[in-house]
Amino acid sequence: MTSSTDLSGLLTSLYQEIRETALLNSCAGILGWDERTYMPKNAAYYRGEQIGLLARLSHEKFTSPQIGEKLNKIEALFKEMNATDISLFDKANVREISRAYLRAVKLPGSFVAELAKTTSEAQGAWQQARAENRFEGFEPWLTKIVKMKREEAQLIGYNEHPYNALLDEYEPGATVSSIRSLFAELRQELVPFLQNIVQSKRKPNTEILTRNYPVQQQELFGKQAAEKIGFDFNSGRLDVTTHPFCSGITPGDCRITTRYNPKFFNEAFFGILHEAGHGIYEQNLPSDHFGLPAGSAISLGIHESQSRLWENQIGRSLPFWQYFFPLAQTAFPEALGDVSLTDWLFAINEVKPSLIRVEADEVTYNLHIILRFELEVAILGQELNVKDIPGIWNEKMKEFFGLTPPSNQLGCLQDIHWSMGGLGYFPTYTLGNLFAAQFMNQFKLENITCEQQWQQGDFASLKKWLVDKIHRFGQQYRSSELCQQITGKDLSHKPFMQYLREKFSKLYDL
Amino acid sequence: MTSSTDLSGLLTSLYQEIRETALLNSCAGILGWDERTYMPKNAAYYRGEQIGLLARLSHEKFTSPQIGEKLNKIEALFKEMNATDISLFDKANVREISRAYLRAVKLPGSFVAELAKTTSEAQGAWQQARAENRFEGFEPWLTKIVKMKREEAQLIGYNEHPYNALLDEYEPGATVSSIRSLFAELRQELVPFLQNIVQSKRKPNTEILTRNYPVQQQELFGKQAAEKIGFDFNSGRLDVTTHPFCSGITPGDCRITTRYNPKFFNEAFFGILHEAGHGIYEQNLPSDHFGLPAGSAISLGIHESQSRLWENQIGRSLPFWQYFFPLAQTAFPEALGDVSLTDWLFAINEVKPSLIRVEADEVTYNLHIILRFELEVAILGQELNVKDIPGIWNEKMKEFFGLTPPSNQLGCLQDIHWSMGGLGYFPTYTLGNLFAAQFMNQFKLENITCEQQWQQGDFASLKKWLVDKIHRFGQQYRSSELCQQITGKDLSHKPFMQYLREKFSKLYDL
Repeated sequence: MTSSTDLSGLLTSLYQEIRETALLNSCAGILGWDERTYMPKNAAYYRGEQIGLLARLSHEKFTSPQIGEKLNKIEALFKEMNATDISLFDKANVREISRAYLRAVKLPGSFVAELAKTTSEAQGAWQQARAENRFEGFEPWLTKIVKMKREEAQLIGYNEHPYNALLDEYEPGATVSSIRSLFAELRQELVPFLQNIVQSKRKPNTEILTRNYPVQQQELFGKQAAEKIGFDFNSGRLDVTTHPFCSGITPGDCRITTRYNPKFFNEAFFGILHEAGHGIYEQNLPSDHFGLPAGSAISLGIHESQSRLWENQIGRSLPFWQYFFPLAQTAFPEALGDVSLTDWLFAINEVKPSLIRVEADEVTYNLHIILRFELEVAILGQELNVKDIPGIWNEKMKEFFGLTPPSNQLGCLQDIHWSMGGLGYFPTYTLGNLFAAQFMNQFKLENITCEQQWQQGDFASLKKWLVDKIHRFGQQYRSSELCQQITGKDLSHKPFMQYLREKFSKLYDL
Repeated sequence: MTSSTDLSGLLTSLYQEIRETALLNSCAGILGWDERTYMPKNAAYYRGEQIGLLARLSHEKFTSPQIGEKLNKIEALFKEMNATDISLFDKANVREISRAYLRAVKLPGSFVAELAKTTSEAQGAWQQARAENRFEGFEPWLTKIVKMKREEAQLIGYNEHPYNALLDEYEPGATVSSIRSLFAELRQELVPFLQNIVQSKRKPNTEILTRNYPVQQQELFGKQAAEKIGFDFNSGRLDVTTHPFCSGITPGDCRITTRYNPKFFNEAFFGILHEAGHGIYEQNLPSDHFGLPAGSAISLGIHESQSRLWENQIGRSLPFWQYFFPLAQTAFPEALGDVSLTDWLFAINEVKPSLIRVEADEVTYNLHIILRFELEVAILGQELNVKDIPGIWNEKMKEFFGLTPPSNQLGCLQDIHWSMGGLGYFPTYTLGNLFAAQFMNQFKLENITCEQQWQQGDFASLKKWLVDKIHRFGQQYRSSELCQQITGKDLSHKPFMQYLREKFSKLYDL
């Protein structure tokens, strides 16, 4: 006999325990933010102890057998019910808690601790190896990490390819084969398109970006823009860190960071728009469901779609700057007094093959990602040895960009991700770009006068649309379902390529 | 049979559990600091939940029966041993953990939760009552708090007076009768001494303190002074809050705050010295014993002695300003260009009966405390009803200062302490002043050339002496023992009165 009281009691009790783990994680979130912003130097040792303790308590609570028992009972009760009698939020919560629980309990505590220790030390080794330009210094660490990530994939279990087990942590439901074919199509169009741009005789004057941009003015201007696109400073902050990030802590507390370069406009400003995009997503998740999947972001790909949408589709668009350029000229009279909007727009949209991913433009960025994805899959599939990475990296750089990195520092040692054990993370960046273009394409179809609003500095209807279509659902849908639901189509490279062609053909006169 | 392995194993295991509760509390410390400095407005609700959860987990761990069992076993083993075979650190740890454990387990969880809820709501009621100058708005809350604090005293148990049970939380070992006789002697000398000052024809020119003191310069100058007296900014920070505080979080992380008034020098500067004094104590507790009594401050009285010593005994002294006044003139040329050191020293040492405790000078401050102590003891002893507080308050103000508060806002509603349930807290402020004078008297006896060092901005030997005599012992000694050990005498009002007489007789030409 299915008793709805039983079910309701079980769900309440399960949710309370899960929320408590989330609350502990949110405490660690503040400690992590503090560590990177204001913490005094000598606090480092005990900060590690504090965060370690909170992580352990949260993990212990999350993996306790009572959670498993409750999940089993609830799932059994669900099976006896009509699917339509279960709320979509409850369905999402139970499905995703169960997924995370099963992943967590499959990994023995000793393995988790060993991996945490290894990646913590590996980050130090990576930093040093990069500074000294010595891949050999990082190689043994990466070899160990790859071995452990393969072991993790075995423990968790997977179909077809061990990489799928890792992907699943960042982009639930994504697979090597689906990403491979998506990326192949993208690459096939992207490489010749890039060639056209490179061969164009029109070049932007990027000197205007490297004039004097006083930091205080940058901060005011960046905050103004973040606020205009919908980041709520009553529920968030903007601070300074070496490596910018967005940390969604609790409803009402989302913190973004940037770094200011007084001689380069792009670094802080587009970084702020990017992190504010992440932040707007976090700030508009359903706060009633805080701590549960129904109140959490879907995946890294969808998260990145929000940051990229505001940073690039909006932040590097003509209508955006029709509103903001006069304000920028007022904020930076010395740098921009003699600059035209046309020259400005071209300069901030320069396309140029380059060695460093984080500095790459909208066209070349995804080639950096495809390169890393191909390497990661080959390494996990044991088709490539760690020691051969530098060689393959440079071959692919030549093939994709026509460039050969002069050093591993500017090549395979540039990113922190592998040292953190984040294999499977990179592809979500490009998924984010593709989602962003496909969502924006749909929004424009539904809101044909949107650009006129943007020219007035009014981004409210776009933000509202994103909240209605994406944010408010939490994890109710997987990213692929959400994409179908919003756009009526599976994720494709086409809207993105169409966006690039339209935009850059004009700029580069192709 | 006493096995030293048993004992060592028990101590290790006990310490590990206690350290874990301290580590949880230190996480809450960061969250509390953040709440008062940088937290966005809308984060308040979940910040309460976060801190509440950490407090609950810490309390659960601390009061678990295993702790009691271990304490019992260890104490039994201690009894079989020669007292000299037990390290002083272990002795202090077991004694103080046991004391705190017994206090904690005597209070039922429901009582603790009810008191926390009551005082949380009472703070809101107090704020409103103070703003509206309506004692009646606060009276029912204070009545409930007093009732609960009496109940707390009953639950904990006490000798002679229920107030002793409350005092014991802030100043272990102190009693109503000892403080009463100490304060009576102090008051007897203080009141006529104040009369002499009030009747003096010499008056300082305090207008010089209310000139333009740009905030940025105040911050730089305050930090410079804090650093000079020994506050370590690699292990600490200085930020801005409405209500200044010092929060010792972990070894290597002690945070102080202040507030800047661009038209009044004293507010931030002496506040910084005060909080830095607390901070220097926190920064020099034995870090090996972090999380245990042997690594913690003795009592509020001793803590306050450290802040008062640096703020007043040093920070308002001639030698200090012989070094710092030229620097102040450079930092604030507009305000101080035409001011002499003599006039400056007199101005920052103005003595004047006033209504507000936190603005009081060194002479009158303790009369404010004595007044509060007498009221608290009478309320706890049921000799005074809450509704009669305003009348008695004003009578005593007349008696001590010759002043009648024009409103309860400027009278019995001025302090937050009672609304927080902090009955028993006030007397530690005056104990701190007396300890500071007695310690400083001793230091000067042992270091007759110290003033020459201070004139050079060299405070290292004083700081070292405080570390050697006080900080490094953690809670090895009770405050009364420590006082005996350092000065060879019990705590007395005499060194303090002698200090006041010497200093103010010169300034006021008595």
